Amino acid sequence: MTQLELAREGKISPQMTLVAEDEGVEAEFVRRGVAEGTIVIPANIKHKNLVPCGIGQGLKTKVNANIGTSSDFGDIDTEQEKLKVAAESGADTVMDLSTGGDISAIRRAIIAASTLPIGTVPVYQAGIEAIAHHNAIVKMTVEELFSAIEEHARDGVDFMTVHCGVTRAAVDRLRQQGRVADVVSRGGAFLIGWMLHNDCENPLYENYDRLLEIAKEFDVTLSLGDGMRPGCLADATDQAQIEELLAIGELVNRARQAGVQAMVEGPGHLPLNHIEANVKLEKAICKGAPFYVLGPLVTDIAAGYDHITGAIGGAIAAAAGADFLCYVTPAEHLSLPDPEDVRQGVIASRIAAHAADIVKGVKGAAEQDRKMAIARKKLDWKEQARLSLDPALARQVHGKHASSGSACSMCGQFCAMELVEKYLNITAIKC
Amino acid sequence: MTQLELAREGKISPQMTLVAEDEGVEAEFVRRGVAEGTIVIPANIKHKNLVPCGIGQGLKTKVNANIGTSSDFGDIDTEQEKLKVAAESGADTVMDLSTGGDISAIRRAIIAASTLPIGTVPVYQAGIEAIAHHNAIVKMTVEELFSAIEEHARDGVDFMTVHCGVTRAAVDRLRQQGRVADVVSRGGAFLIGWMLHNDCENPLYENYDRLLEIAKEFDVTLSLGDGMRPGCLADATDQAQIEELLAIGELVNRARQAGVQAMVEGPGHLPLNHIEANVKLEKAICKGAPFYVLGPLVTDIAAGYDHITGAIGGAIAAAAGADFLCYVTPAEHLSLPDPEDVRQGVIASRIAAHAADIVKGVKGAAEQDRKMAIARKKLDWKEQARLSLDPALARQVHGKHASSGSACSMCGQFCAMELVEKYLNITAIKC
Repeated sequence: MTQLELAREGKISPQMTLVAEDEGVEAEFVRRGVAEGTIVIPANIKHKNLVPCGIGQGLKTKVNANIGTSSDFGDIDTEQEKLKVAAESGADTVMDLSTGGDISAIRRAIIAASTLPIGTVPVYQAGIEAIAHHNAIVKMTVEELFSAIEEHARDGVDFMTVHCGVTRAAVDRLRQQGRVADVVSRGGAFLIGWMLHNDCENPLYENYDRLLEIAKEFDVTLSLGDGMRPGCLADATDQAQIEELLAIGELVNRARQAGVQAMVEGPGHLPLNHIEANVKLEKAICKGAPFYVLGPLVTDIAAGYDHITGAIGGAIAAAAGADFLCYVTPAEHLSLPDPEDVRQGVIASRIAAHAADIVKGVKGAAEQDRKMAIARKKLDWKEQARLSLDPALARQVHGKHASSGSACSMCGQFCAMELVEKYLNITAIKC
Repeated sequence: MTQLELAREGKISPQMTLVAEDEGVEAEFVRRGVAEGTIVIPANIKHKNLVPCGIGQGLKTKVNANIGTSSDFGDIDTEQEKLKVAAESGADTVMDLSTGGDISAIRRAIIAASTLPIGTVPVYQAGIEAIAHHNAIVKMTVEELFSAIEEHARDGVDFMTVHCGVTRAAVDRLRQQGRVADVVSRGGAFLIGWMLHNDCENPLYENYDRLLEIAKEFDVTLSLGDGMRPGCLADATDQAQIEELLAIGELVNRARQAGVQAMVEGPGHLPLNHIEANVKLEKAICKGAPFYVLGPLVTDIAAGYDHITGAIGGAIAAAAGADFLCYVTPAEHLSLPDPEDVRQGVIASRIAAHAADIVKGVKGAAEQDRKMAIARKKLDWKEQARLSLDPALARQVHGKHASSGSACSMCGQFCAMELVEKYLNITAIKC
């Protein structure tokens, strides 16, 4: 039985108990969320060393790190290093998006090495193998596509991006309406190319029940991908994107009916003032399904700093109710990220997630900041570093220009904390 | 006559004309904003090489970079280097917050070298000289304080932080209510210590007319400082902060009546969901005076990455109507920033400012992103770098892991842009 089926029967699984302990909430709260579909616990029955993680309403906002090879760089050791860096930096999940080298071997190695839930996008591999076998992605057969999905499920993939909502209706909207950047989702592009070339409906939409069967067998959480996500601010929240969301809303319902856990992927590139509306829309259309946003990026022009544009958008999205942030690295739009990019991306997204958790009222979030404020007031530098998101960096920057006094070198002898402490307290005693 | 007095008389000054040209708006729009006090043009009549910059409603969101020595590091060459880096990275103004070395010499050198408006906090120097002459900040005389202010004005300082709103009433609120981090503003702390020790009202509040006379003589823009700004999320939007804001609202009115330009400084550390309310409150209480926010920082626990927490808060603040963002560097809370920290801080704040300008509808802002989207769609890497906030970095990251194809090494042969272009267009022609 899947976590969803267990929860519906009123059963609290070991995974639900572990999630509850990690979050500091009641196990019954987690069970109810899973039963209602507002929480997912991606936990493939074949992923043996998994430490389960809950994603959804009432839980901490989670952060995903994308790793994986490309056709230009296919080194398995680098990907293992990225996995390690992602986990050490505090990512909650990792997606292996490999499209180069021995894709199956890389995925299996990553699953074997990871206690974090692992996600993949099986259509990448199916498309790439179609090039190898038939010389074109568009020649991929439906059997080949499902065979890739089943292989990923059998390998222990905990959640899978499936672009089931890229329907012919959504493609028609795209063409009628036009776009500046068309489609920037790779999986979406593979499928749209296939659909247009073969003049067929999306095979993942048409054969959704078959997909649900596989997902149910291994308890793979479906991450309903946004193949129509806007790839620039000018294309945000347009007809194609919302047409796809409507299809996804329908597919969430069908997944729940089948006992399959589902979450929904969202944009992408969005002007800052579209973000809240996008989150509210997803929550309404998809009946509270966990929302997994890619950024969102609030400007297109910050190449080299897109971990920052993603942190701005992610914080706003999560504060509005998004549950799961896909990180963006400084290499986004420019090149394949290296391990240091992975670290920067994870930390930036964790800042966004935490800033949102404070205003979501997530248990313990504001308390961390209060402890930091007390440590700052005491000029307790050891405790400040310990409480930081990245203690090693905090120590290094503090030590780089050491002060001769007890304050830091920014204010030196003229530390506001020290001054006010002295006068406020002396006079307080006098009165 | 000050810019405000000229504007009120219906005169368009050369400074207003230059600001209008830079912003792509009508000079009359700028004049009206200056006359109404919703726009300031910090332009000391003694700052000869100044290129004027407008700050306020209907204009691009501006970014300030704080530089300056501390008692631990007093090297004038490093500060000149920081000024250069700030200007090259796109800062609109620079504040010299020096508290170490020959403070007057550093300030004069920076003003002489800068075409950007320069701000200072004269109470720092007055307090430090009080230590030299009387062995304690609290022994500073009112004459000494005003002598420092006059010296800064005469040197050509374009805007000046003056913590006039830290009244006894605000200090009483602070003590009645209590705080986790008390006061984190250095200028605020100097004055509060002085007020408590001497049992007197804030000399800048009590002698505000004298301050206005100096400001008027040189057309120094007053930046009404927030000495009571929250220094941690737990202290945000509290009684002391808002009591000070009420006093500042009164002082903005008096400045306008005297023909003196004024803007208002704001927090600080704020939970994400307090930011919009803080901006709206300032705009209401201070009758549309330009709002200059310090961050805001949306979490306390990201030491080493506070340029990112500041970018999150700054983007939300500016989107809500804040006009001027004081950058935060990665060194904040840890040490005096070095030139590379300055660069990182300026870029992060520029991202926030631009993301907000898109949603504010600032002229030309969204167009930059549209051009980038078109360059991306064309895989025109030269144009993408050119349109980036930091072209050199964009080129470097793109080149770091070069692709063998025309796309980047993230997707290699499987670029969504390339795929969709092919199929969407072919079929479009068929139909």
